[in-house]
Amino acid sequence: MKIRLGMIGGGPGSFIGAVHRKAAALDAMYELVCGSFSSNPEKSKETGSGLQLDPDRVYGSYQEMISRESALDADLRMQAVSIVTPNHLHAGPAIMALEHGFHVIIDKPLAFSLDEARQIQAAVKKTGLVFALTHTYAGYPMIKEARNLVRTGKIGTLRKIFVEYPQGWLSAHLEKDGQKQASWRTDPSMSGAGGSVGDIGTHAAHLAEYVSGLKIVQVCGELNTKVEGRLLDDDAAALLRFENGVSGVLMATQIAAGEENNLKMRIYGEKGGLEWSHADPNTLLLKPADGPVQVYRTGSGYVSDAAAKFTRLPAGHPEGYIEAFANIYTAFAEAVTDHTSGRYRSAADYDFPTVDEGVRGMAFIETMVASSASDKKWTNLSL
Amino acid sequence: MKIRLGMIGGGPGSFIGAVHRKAAALDAMYELVCGSFSSNPEKSKETGSGLQLDPDRVYGSYQEMISRESALDADLRMQAVSIVTPNHLHAGPAIMALEHGFHVIIDKPLAFSLDEARQIQAAVKKTGLVFALTHTYAGYPMIKEARNLVRTGKIGTLRKIFVEYPQGWLSAHLEKDGQKQASWRTDPSMSGAGGSVGDIGTHAAHLAEYVSGLKIVQVCGELNTKVEGRLLDDDAAALLRFENGVSGVLMATQIAAGEENNLKMRIYGEKGGLEWSHADPNTLLLKPADGPVQVYRTGSGYVSDAAAKFTRLPAGHPEGYIEAFANIYTAFAEAVTDHTSGRYRSAADYDFPTVDEGVRGMAFIETMVASSASDKKWTNLSL
Amino acid sequence: MKIRLGMIGGGPGSFIGAVHRKAAALDAMYELVCGSFSSNPEKSKETGSGLQLDPDRVYGSYQEMISRESALDADLRMQAVSIVTPNHLHAGPAIMALEHGFHVIIDKPLAFSLDEARQIQAAVKKTGLVFALTHTYAGYPMIKEARNLVRTGKIGTLRKIFVEYPQGWLSAHLEKDGQKQASWRTDPSMSGAGGSVGDIGTHAAHLAEYVSGLKIVQVCGELNTKVEGRLLDDDAAALLRFENGVSGVLMATQIAAGEENNLKMRIYGEKGGLEWSHADPNTLLLKPADGPVQVYRTGSGYVSDAAAKFTRLPAGHPEGYIEAFANIYTAFAEAVTDHTSGRYRSAADYDFPTVDEGVRGMAFIETMVASSASDKKWTNLSL
Amino acid sequence: MKIRLGMIGGGPGSFIGAVHRKAAALDAMYELVCGSFSSNPEKSKETGSGLQLDPDRVYGSYQEMISRESALDADLRMQAVSIVTPNHLHAGPAIMALEHGFHVIIDKPLAFSLDEARQIQAAVKKTGLVFALTHTYAGYPMIKEARNLVRTGKIGTLRKIFVEYPQGWLSAHLEKDGQKQASWRTDPSMSGAGGSVGDIGTHAAHLAEYVSGLKIVQVCGELNTKVEGRLLDDDAAALLRFENGVSGVLMATQIAAGEENNLKMRIYGEKGGLEWSHADPNTLLLKPADGPVQVYRTGSGYVSDAAAKFTRLPAGHPEGYIEAFANIYTAFAEAVTDHTSGRYRSAADYDFPTVDEGVRGMAFIETMVASSASDKKWTNLSL
Repeated sequence: MKIRLGMIGGGPGSFIGAVHRKAAALDAMYELVCGSFSSNPEKSKETGSGLQLDPDRVYGSYQEMISRESALDADLRMQAVSIVTPNHLHAGPAIMALEHGFHVIIDKPLAFSLDEARQIQAAVKKTGLVFALTHTYAGYPMIKEARNLVRTGKIGTLRKIFVEYPQGWLSAHLEKDGQKQASWRTDPSMSGAGGSVGDIGTHAAHLAEYVSGLKIVQVCGELNTKVEGRLLDDDAAALLRFENGVSGVLMATQIAAGEENNLKMRIYGEKGGLEWSHADPNTLLLKPADGPVQVYRTGSGYVSDAAAKFTRLPAGHPEGYIEAFANIYTAFAEAVTDHTSGRYRSAADYDFPTVDEGVRGMAFIETMVASSASDKKWTNLSL
Repeated sequence: MKIRLGMIGGGPGSFIGAVHRKAAALDAMYELVCGSFSSNPEKSKETGSGLQLDPDRVYGSYQEMISRESALDADLRMQAVSIVTPNHLHAGPAIMALEHGFHVIIDKPLAFSLDEARQIQAAVKKTGLVFALTHTYAGYPMIKEARNLVRTGKIGTLRKIFVEYPQGWLSAHLEKDGQKQASWRTDPSMSGAGGSVGDIGTHAAHLAEYVSGLKIVQVCGELNTKVEGRLLDDDAAALLRFENGVSGVLMATQIAAGEENNLKMRIYGEKGGLEWSHADPNTLLLKPADGPVQVYRTGSGYVSDAAAKFTRLPAGHPEGYIEAFANIYTAFAEAVTDHTSGRYRSAADYDFPTVDEGVRGMAFIETMVASSASDKKWTNLSL
Repeated sequence: MKIRLGMIGGGPGSFIGAVHRKAAALDAMYELVCGSFSSNPEKSKETGSGLQLDPDRVYGSYQEMISRESALDADLRMQAVSIVTPNHLHAGPAIMALEHGFHVIIDKPLAFSLDEARQIQAAVKKTGLVFALTHTYAGYPMIKEARNLVRTGKIGTLRKIFVEYPQGWLSAHLEKDGQKQASWRTDPSMSGAGGSVGDIGTHAAHLAEYVSGLKIVQVCGELNTKVEGRLLDDDAAALLRFENGVSGVLMATQIAAGEENNLKMRIYGEKGGLEWSHADPNTLLLKPADGPVQVYRTGSGYVSDAAAKFTRLPAGHPEGYIEAFANIYTAFAEAVTDHTSGRYRSAADYDFPTVDEGVRGMAFIETMVASSASDKKWTNLSL
Repeated sequence: MKIRLGMIGGGPGSFIGAVHRKAAALDAMYELVCGSFSSNPEKSKETGSGLQLDPDRVYGSYQEMISRESALDADLRMQAVSIVTPNHLHAGPAIMALEHGFHVIIDKPLAFSLDEARQIQAAVKKTGLVFALTHTYAGYPMIKEARNLVRTGKIGTLRKIFVEYPQGWLSAHLEKDGQKQASWRTDPSMSGAGGSVGDIGTHAAHLAEYVSGLKIVQVCGELNTKVEGRLLDDDAAALLRFENGVSGVLMATQIAAGEENNLKMRIYGEKGGLEWSHADPNTLLLKPADGPVQVYRTGSGYVSDAAAKFTRLPAGHPEGYIEAFANIYTAFAEAVTDHTSGRYRSAADYDFPTVDEGVRGMAFIETMVASSASDKKWTNLSL
């Protein structure tokens, strides 16, 4: 049976809401049954109508939706909710949904603040429900292959991690003209303490921790606001210290004019290195210290099960951003299905980003903000 | 309202059936309502069940499906059918579906033979229904951009076209061991007169004609069977002559060991060239005769409406094979919707491959087969 | 001791003359001692003076140079001569130089016609002197690595060869305005029977034979003149048949507007493929049928001696066109030195293109011209 | 007339000595007339003999060479000296050569310490002789093009600079086994205070300042020694502050296992970005904020004179590391020639790295060492 999904956010002008819907649709594991797409009931209706939802199940607020869905028959009401609102509207619906028994899949960063993130985490712990965070890039098969190669010792003991995320779209003062995507991301009352560091820096930090299996323990960060008049950072960089004496460098900037969305990770161990770039996401380079670089490719016969599980097509048939996104939805669906049948034990059995990773992301943001304001070189990232 | 779709073929072991379903699902324009997934009723049921279809609408044969769906209420029965069977099972269901009033979207090549293709074409003409052929690669936004740049004269009067399609997956004698995808493609009783030339050569030829806007008028072709014991060609090449004195070279091989699925097209005019490769499908290179190469990218602000219309995400968020496939489904949906509301006039108003292009593809196959058997250098491709 | 080198051709406006001189200088194996740089004695003097040659050894004609150098003391006179004139001025100086006891290194194609080429070949046979042909691309280390991988069976029994050479510089009618490089190449009285097929098609054909170790036995060729008013072909393509049933496709065009100098070769066997492109000449891709692509790189520890011998720098320090050219000069120098000390037996002991390869190149040109004019599909390339 | 060149260092086992010789030979502007190739007179003789030098001008020490060459006739003695010894042997010969009237071209980093660097600088100022530092990468035409595009405002007011230099060759403890290149570079008594930061970090810092035209004013650096037992840093990273509020990130590591020599620079302004990578040195990407990326290529007709001046071949004929090196020799030759004829005024009129840039490099090393040892975030780089 398809999982009955509701959505909070994703109304007119939303970018990520449509992505969530396509990701959920792709593998036919979900049926979108209801939504509260906008705080403006008119706009919510309009979006719901475009999606051919039953008008009775298009709501004017998330509170209404959660309450009224709870009142429906168990085999009718939504089972899980997708939260795709700006950061300041994460904790409220997430906690309410959990408390009403709904599984949650939510966009990153987890919350408006570390404090809110911890409240969500507590609710997940308390309810035992399934909770996933859409760190898209962790959904790419070649990222899963990279993680598997690190785990199996292919590149030896780790030494160094470089992760970078240059974008150029905020090079101009877009929010001045009301561009919706720019406006909330640069507004501290909606985005939180971090601008670029929250929007994309958290993706970079998550990827580094996910692939390496190591936690960042100290940062030496600098946040800049390069566009005059902007209220949050649009450029971030940091020297990093991970567990086990591994060091790293992180860059995340939204003012690298002319860049698209070029998340890239390189990780080096004693025996070799790995390189992955979002510009060519179905390729993973394995660079042995003393042999030819090997080009691992999504869908090839030789890739591990860790990657193959999240692949739809044979090599040479590119899977992209929506497919990576769908991979998180797929793993979440598996967990929800298991939960429904009583087989779910912990998120660790599935390969999707968890609330704990979301809390670490918020700690990363706040540590970067603190480090940037400090004259001390190193600031601890502790939880 | 979503279009109610039925499917013929796409049972267990099918590759392209699942692709069609994901493509139809992606943009939420279709609801899969029925299917005849296999000539084996058990297997058909099994697939239908996995897809959570109403068991009453999972049929044991396409004849049964078309008959029984026709008998359902107009607002319940399928409106269009997706045909994803091997080539020898194209004409039968396509013509029957058309004659019962169902729009058809069908995998390539159009049919088992040129003769069958013409019969389908006649049925389309007679019924005036919507008929689309899934030449996937024509669905990529950067291919549409290329076509638009040619049309608008960006590279001047055309001179030369190179199109190549190397694959390596048939380097070994897979069909000997019953590998399903290899078996029917190399079996003349299922695939028709062409092996590689039909399976992938038609994609290459279609792309060349689609982007250039020119028809191939003569071929000097060679078909080879490189793997001993194989019953059809697994390697094809040709010198081409297009209208307007444009010349070309086409390669399509399935024994290029180590290659994935690297369709690539280059087209040159007096003022510049264009290059597109499926290995990096969101990039189109515009090469002016006397300036820096310009890298056009899917989702960028400067691309034409022709491409933008078929794009879901901003630049740097890769769209892949399923998205390209979905673009054909999207255009087909638009036409079906217009047909339903009486606004449809001809396929030419929508940007999807038509039955006429399918007939040309079959003529290409048969001309290549004839040319390969001939001592004469040039064989006309005439319709 | 450095080899004393003379040069015929390479005066003002010459492109390849300067390349030969830099190639000879790079590894300090030659001393340029004399030259006949132009048929215009003034221009010859001017070039010689710029090269700081002894004015007494700057000659007004090649005949004068060969005669007068012959009369010098054995430890003073030139030992070898570099011939860099247009094609119609190859046979005369080459044969005269050989007959006067001078080793010869000469630009490609070997001669104006196959007949002249055979005369040169006869002179080489008769004199037993060292004779090298500068098929530059065969000098690249990664081409030597490719050849070695083929020889050692890394990709198994060969099946298919693709070689292409798109250039764009003749897209306009440059010779109309007297551009020197274009003028002689498009003039049948200087270039011979072939335009693009001689200028770059011979490079492509040579590379295919060199790397594969197989001879082309039949061609189905087409030569086009795309620029109106041009006197020779500027666009060539062919289906090829090699020994052992291997088939191939060759493209060589000078009207691919926007292309630079993108010679590229792909060769496939039962077990894998190899790809090399002049756009990235220090990389060779080995594509196993069932494992990740391996990226071989010039200067790496794992490459064979065949390549390492012709490499100056560690991996990551790009060597380019002049270095590849210099590799032919280096091998020629080795042979000349061995000849001087009586150890030289045959050109086959050194890795440089020989007069026999030059004769094959001329046969390739004339066979392509014949094939292009023929209605028959296949024309034999026999010697 | 060719410039008569002497060489100090570059004996058996030297890497960079041979590079300097090839670079000097390439364009026929120099004649190598003497050398002191090793502190071991036997080895010096051996190298000189291999280079076919007059044995009388192969010396056992640099002191002997400088003294005895000074005593030769003005039109016979060397005019300039190339110093290619390890860092601790830079200041001695450089200052002595200058004081004896010889122009100097020297490998980087300039000296063993900032203090020594200042002494060299003083000697250059005092003597007014020509002094060049071989920061190779600044010799690439596309770097010169980048600098020119920045200068002419193509990317607008600068905001951000990323420069990285990953190598992998010191991933193992090579110096333990006496590998010559590793041994001196990791020995503080020969290399100075910096390991990787001096060997390659200075290249990266130089490139950033050269292209941007901005000076680094503060660093927040971290130096690591990742290979146990090594005596100097093998991994360096820094946040940078340039003049005009531009910020940057620098990485330079020699333990990025599997990496070759991948210096890369990206620089962003308000209107666009530039990207250059040593892995593809003849390409420069210009990334406008709102148009297609433009691929600038060495040797193209549209590049500026700044680049064209240092280019030998048309586009598509790769020039590499030796050519870039030769470009510094070429500019130095021009300056020496002008000096000889009394036309030389200052190094600023020629495009080669100067002693002042060398002093800045040494200050960069020492500031990075100080910063790495400090708990403070920022350390000033002041001169």
